[in-house]
Amino acid sequence: MSRGRLEAFSDGVLAVLITIMVLDLRPPDGHSLADLRPLVPKLAVYALSFVFLAIYWNNHHHLMHLVETISGGVLWANAHLLFWLSLTPAATAWMSPHLSAPAPVFVYGVVLFGSAVAYYILTRALLRVHAPGSPLARAIGSDVKGRVSAVAYLAALAAAWIEPWIALGIYIIVALVWLVPDRRIEHAPAVRGEQQSESS
Amino acid sequence: MSRGRLEAFSDGVLAVLITIMVLDLRPPDGHSLADLRPLVPKLAVYALSFVFLAIYWNNHHHLMHLVETISGGVLWANAHLLFWLSLTPAATAWMSPHLSAPAPVFVYGVVLFGSAVAYYILTRALLRVHAPGSPLARAIGSDVKGRVSAVAYLAALAAAWIEPWIALGIYIIVALVWLVPDRRIEHAPAVRGEQQSESS
Amino acid sequence: MSRGRLEAFSDGVLAVLITIMVLDLRPPDGHSLADLRPLVPKLAVYALSFVFLAIYWNNHHHLMHLVETISGGVLWANAHLLFWLSLTPAATAWMSPHLSAPAPVFVYGVVLFGSAVAYYILTRALLRVHAPGSPLARAIGSDVKGRVSAVAYLAALAAAWIEPWIALGIYIIVALVWLVPDRRIEHAPAVRGEQQSESS
Amino acid sequence: MSRGRLEAFSDGVLAVLITIMVLDLRPPDGHSLADLRPLVPKLAVYALSFVFLAIYWNNHHHLMHLVETISGGVLWANAHLLFWLSLTPAATAWMSPHLSAPAPVFVYGVVLFGSAVAYYILTRALLRVHAPGSPLARAIGSDVKGRVSAVAYLAALAAAWIEPWIALGIYIIVALVWLVPDRRIEHAPAVRGEQQSESS
Repeated sequence: MSRGRLEAFSDGVLAVLITIMVLDLRPPDGHSLADLRPLVPKLAVYALSFVFLAIYWNNHHHLMHLVETISGGVLWANAHLLFWLSLTPAATAWMSPHLSAPAPVFVYGVVLFGSAVAYYILTRALLRVHAPGSPLARAIGSDVKGRVSAVAYLAALAAAWIEPWIALGIYIIVALVWLVPDRRIEHAPAVRGEQQSESS
Repeated sequence: MSRGRLEAFSDGVLAVLITIMVLDLRPPDGHSLADLRPLVPKLAVYALSFVFLAIYWNNHHHLMHLVETISGGVLWANAHLLFWLSLTPAATAWMSPHLSAPAPVFVYGVVLFGSAVAYYILTRALLRVHAPGSPLARAIGSDVKGRVSAVAYLAALAAAWIEPWIALGIYIIVALVWLVPDRRIEHAPAVRGEQQSESS
Repeated sequence: MSRGRLEAFSDGVLAVLITIMVLDLRPPDGHSLADLRPLVPKLAVYALSFVFLAIYWNNHHHLMHLVETISGGVLWANAHLLFWLSLTPAATAWMSPHLSAPAPVFVYGVVLFGSAVAYYILTRALLRVHAPGSPLARAIGSDVKGRVSAVAYLAALAAAWIEPWIALGIYIIVALVWLVPDRRIEHAPAVRGEQQSESS
Repeated sequence: MSRGRLEAFSDGVLAVLITIMVLDLRPPDGHSLADLRPLVPKLAVYALSFVFLAIYWNNHHHLMHLVETISGGVLWANAHLLFWLSLTPAATAWMSPHLSAPAPVFVYGVVLFGSAVAYYILTRALLRVHAPGSPLARAIGSDVKGRVSAVAYLAALAAAWIEPWIALGIYIIVALVWLVPDRRIEHAPAVRGEQQSESS
């Protein structure tokens, strides 16, 4: 089986997801700058969700770059990841007008945590069809950043019920940490040479 | 004619379909966890439809992997399949608030059955332009799982009028059966070697 | 310049267009089959628009298959075609509840006519960068079917003001004529061999 | 890292963006041509935004055509550009019913200016990973058109508060200037020959 269509389908779903969130940025009825004020938190949360989805796209891109073969299990692990990510627009729409309410901030974190777990499962499914010394296996390694993120999300899930802004702060910090691209994989050589990865 | 753009267009339509369903997951007005309760059946039906569309994407992926040539008939058979699949969001939106009403559960089954028939027609159109001993022909074979699914859907269409939950149970069982990827095609060798299937 | 991304972008726009039309298939409030009755004309018009967009995708696919080079003019002629096609969902949404009113049926025809003219302009832009004896030039030829369609649309635009159903009948007949794929191009040999067209 | 998926993801986001704007072209309640009159300014602004997004797609296409390698910084510069472009539908929806109000016309210009700056940042990120004499570096050159556009947008931002129509006129003039494709890059030879750029 080939990885090309898996990338194409994932790109398609992520491109649609990242874009349909803007459908919730409804213009105000009035036409003065002051009328935009209620949109400011919405725009900020939209930017946060945009960054999270872009992070997943980036990491997915880096990960797939080293993939040598895929299996049925990988296809379903990937679909499972896309399912969690597809809940991002709904979680965003609920949280943006309720930034100081515990439940929406908690649910947003559940989607982030579920996506992180799904990504972890995808890496395990890929490791099952790659040799231990393969470039993919070496690049994934112990995935410290992924583990720390998951723990941070769990902490945020608890914090949301005490003070939602702490949870929001954790989400933002995790996003900032991931904005630095994954150098382990970025600097690993492409598996099949530049020409092939180019055409996939 | 080439299969590359057929895959790209199908991927695009499926990616949009699977994603716009989330537009129906409207956040509740309130901001407590209890306000989410009416969303639970919606989320469950969304997950079911997500799985069905992902199954079609997976099977389409496996099928196209072995395609050697396509024809005008194949293009239209594929468009016909996409048309049926494109009704999934509407059928999902009608069924999710009416899980115990016969008509919405019946109509959801009609879309599933129509999609299954359209997929069958696509395989026949492909067989017409492939030799009987070709990898595609051998991989499609008698397609027992496809035939059994169609019969199950027909049974569900009748059951929906007696007890909708029986029909729903059948839909879920068929989805679970298909979650196991199609080993006949998965293990068949790619038609034109790994490099080409990679770049398509 | 390469044709690959032009195809990818056009596929993306067409995939989104063909799919977002289903967002107008809103489920009824009730839950009996009778509640679906108002949706029947909507579904019929949706199917008609789906077929028109699929025809354009098919013809675009066949046309691009023979393209050897593109220019800035081709890019804009293609964007111009996509603009007209992007008006299809709005024209569909206006016509479907007003099948017997002249204006919506007329405007739907304007979008069909504008798309046909834009497609014609695209073929001219392509002919300007291809030699007269090239496979593309031979395949386009005098484009009788395209010219007849344009004349039929013009007739429908006039007929819509007398009796909208005559215009609708013309739209359906033109769609049926185009459902037969364009054999001129389908049977022409691919310009750069099967392998390259595969990877584009 | 490869540029192929970067192009595919950008194409996907741009295709969705350019298409979901039509969701705001809601059909009128009535069914006479006169009922369409309020849609005329909406359609005009939609066409303007369509042209702007098509210009970015065209320029992105020309730019990526010469890219030899990308980096993590390029990925994020590209995501940053897509973020600004993703605000276009919301800015369009606010401006189209308020063409003579300063604030919506100003905000539309902010999105145009932000996109122009993000595109500039993307070219700088690309230049950092390309040699000074590379085809990309030579093609970007001093980017007079980009600088003049940014200055024109700044002028429009000020003009919007005096007379919104002046700002609108500037937006239209800049769009017309860009409709002429970028000959510097168009005529530069492809970096890796026609075959590879074909498959990307």
